[in-house]
Amino acid sequence: MKFSKNRNPAVPGFKATGLSCGLKAKNIKDLALIVSEVPATAAGVFTKNRVVSPGVTWSRRALSKSGRCRAIVVNSGNANTVVGEKGFADCDAITKKVAEELSIPQGEVLIASTGVIGVPLPSHKILQAAPQLVQELGKSKNNWTSASEAIMTTDLTSKSDKVSYEFKGKRITLGGMSKGSGMIHPNMATMLGFVCTDAVIDTKTLKKALTEATDRSFNRITVDGDNSTNDCVVVLANGKANNASIKAGTPGYREFLKALTTLCKSLACKIVLDGEGATKFVTVRVQGGKTRKQAYLIANSVATSSLVKTALFGEDPNWGRIYCAVGNAGAAFNPDKVDILLNKHLLLKNGAPTNIPPKNLVKAMQQHEIHISIDLNSGKEWEEVFTCDFSYDYVKINAEYTT
Amino acid sequence: MKFSKNRNPAVPGFKATGLSCGLKAKNIKDLALIVSEVPATAAGVFTKNRVVSPGVTWSRRALSKSGRCRAIVVNSGNANTVVGEKGFADCDAITKKVAEELSIPQGEVLIASTGVIGVPLPSHKILQAAPQLVQELGKSKNNWTSASEAIMTTDLTSKSDKVSYEFKGKRITLGGMSKGSGMIHPNMATMLGFVCTDAVIDTKTLKKALTEATDRSFNRITVDGDNSTNDCVVVLANGKANNASIKAGTPGYREFLKALTTLCKSLACKIVLDGEGATKFVTVRVQGGKTRKQAYLIANSVATSSLVKTALFGEDPNWGRIYCAVGNAGAAFNPDKVDILLNKHLLLKNGAPTNIPPKNLVKAMQQHEIHISIDLNSGKEWEEVFTCDFSYDYVKINAEYTT
Repeated sequence: MKFSKNRNPAVPGFKATGLSCGLKAKNIKDLALIVSEVPATAAGVFTKNRVVSPGVTWSRRALSKSGRCRAIVVNSGNANTVVGEKGFADCDAITKKVAEELSIPQGEVLIASTGVIGVPLPSHKILQAAPQLVQELGKSKNNWTSASEAIMTTDLTSKSDKVSYEFKGKRITLGGMSKGSGMIHPNMATMLGFVCTDAVIDTKTLKKALTEATDRSFNRITVDGDNSTNDCVVVLANGKANNASIKAGTPGYREFLKALTTLCKSLACKIVLDGEGATKFVTVRVQGGKTRKQAYLIANSVATSSLVKTALFGEDPNWGRIYCAVGNAGAAFNPDKVDILLNKHLLLKNGAPTNIPPKNLVKAMQQHEIHISIDLNSGKEWEEVFTCDFSYDYVKINAEYTT
Repeated sequence: MKFSKNRNPAVPGFKATGLSCGLKAKNIKDLALIVSEVPATAAGVFTKNRVVSPGVTWSRRALSKSGRCRAIVVNSGNANTVVGEKGFADCDAITKKVAEELSIPQGEVLIASTGVIGVPLPSHKILQAAPQLVQELGKSKNNWTSASEAIMTTDLTSKSDKVSYEFKGKRITLGGMSKGSGMIHPNMATMLGFVCTDAVIDTKTLKKALTEATDRSFNRITVDGDNSTNDCVVVLANGKANNASIKAGTPGYREFLKALTTLCKSLACKIVLDGEGATKFVTVRVQGGKTRKQAYLIANSVATSSLVKTALFGEDPNWGRIYCAVGNAGAAFNPDKVDILLNKHLLLKNGAPTNIPPKNLVKAMQQHEIHISIDLNSGKEWEEVFTCDFSYDYVKINAEYTT
């Protein structure tokens, strides 16, 4: 498998672009379009927040009706959420306009929005820009970069990656982009992810692969514990690779899932690395679990603990907070069997402290990448949750977002 | 009912004191003792964290064995938690020594600790100080203040209150103290509460009243979403008021419960007011719920949202975050029926924004006390959760706690 980090995510048979239509100030890009040259099978996973953007409702419906898609139009700067009935009407008008410009059925256009909640979307700006958006499609190689920039909100960097592999003589490519730096938590928190692949794969199998891949990637990252109203990850497969159709349970499926998971994990971890105010990248791994749920609850409790996250920011070897968060997870475990390691330093063995010299720990905590490993020594299941620390800047960014 | 805010919590038949035994630096008080002159009925509620201090295990066992108690010894500066087998041996030695000095059975001495986790307790300092601690009991009126000061950790102020009421010709008094400012979350998060009353009430009824009162007070406050390993609230009733014994389901019980809830709510809200880095006191009330659980889940989701809490700190009228947190609660509700008010300003009516002028909202958010009211318009149940905002100082305090 060839993994191209930060590479142009262009995939055969897909085009993309991004421009500024005036939703954001100062000519900052705020409108993106991804298009497949031919109808593609498509699957999506969406936020579990019970308050959702009309865009989420629109795209979920469109996918469940046909399982096919040709285009995704995405705006940043406004979430088009909690805006009353206008929200859904705007989705209708925008997808209709984009479909007209592309000469494709409206039902094959998905829509996503990200930005401030509760402010009516100035949709006329998007409608006005739609012809230009379509004209610019595929004009230059940099258009994928423009698209990934146009979906940013408080992100400091655009996020994209590409993976390709050969299977039975055919090269299959997967490219994607993601967005998000705050409101990030398992189950799609103000986070957008778009993956394109040239694989031949049916809608049902694609949905299964996406669900499995997001459960090891986008659903395992947390910045601040909040789920947004707008999150989605969508994958389009246009079949240009001419491989034998991928079926669940086959070696071909396993290879595809591996590539999709690698790509999704990379795109998800970029979001954590760009977490609002983040100074550390933290992996919390729980192993030796009886069930995946037990392992997940514990990993998530540690990864979301404000006390653990502030201690990590302060490089404070207050490991008791880690163990306290383990106990807080709402999952049963045997405290006398727990081992905890921080960057390979054994802090706790069988639930008792190892009395490691604090100065060794301080050094470990000064690393940019922190790996907290918790072994329950009770089974074979594991889960990983990726998070960042909690800094002054997190508070600053979030105290001053709309004003 | 007479509610004496910040008053000396002395209750007839009880004594208390506090001193410095050297667990903390610079002669700061770190050891407290509360004693009933006669054996008292007693009840306690404890942390639900699965990692608990040996002191929690000790006191829970002592209460379940006898339901009676004469003394509570409390130290701050060290949580005596995750310290291996020494932790329980220290509880045994300390309660034994205190019992000897008071000439009472060891089984009637409870113990509680609060402070840093994972550092062995220098219990010899407590053992050495025990005779002086007992000698100083009741020497002056200020000893209750000393006791409430001696249980502080990052608290900026000591916390105590008193309530009294007359029922059928007898005056019943309840006095208490509490401690906590970080790691505060429902289900007893590094929070200690001790209540003394002269009421005549049996153990079982006292436990029932304490459980009901904490479910409307100590279990409804949140500073940072973390539960500690050491939290407990204990109530002692020594019967000095000579009232007819209080029985569940009677008017006498309802009066007692009202007084106990008032006291516990006051002691709990003092913890929120003293929340680490807090600049606002925030009440999140959910009403019109179908069930208390639904109302609680939603109130708790809003009260624990880092995004809501940072917006409150920034006095940023980004109310979309409130509604987003409502949707994140994991509780079903009808989005089209939801009304949201912030300090009496209607932000959302039937799930749609009221387009209130932002300048009105900014003014409302500049208040010290913020009242967020969410009406689900689906039933009669309600819950309130009390919280504070999330400030730079929260990060500062918690990034630098042990170092």
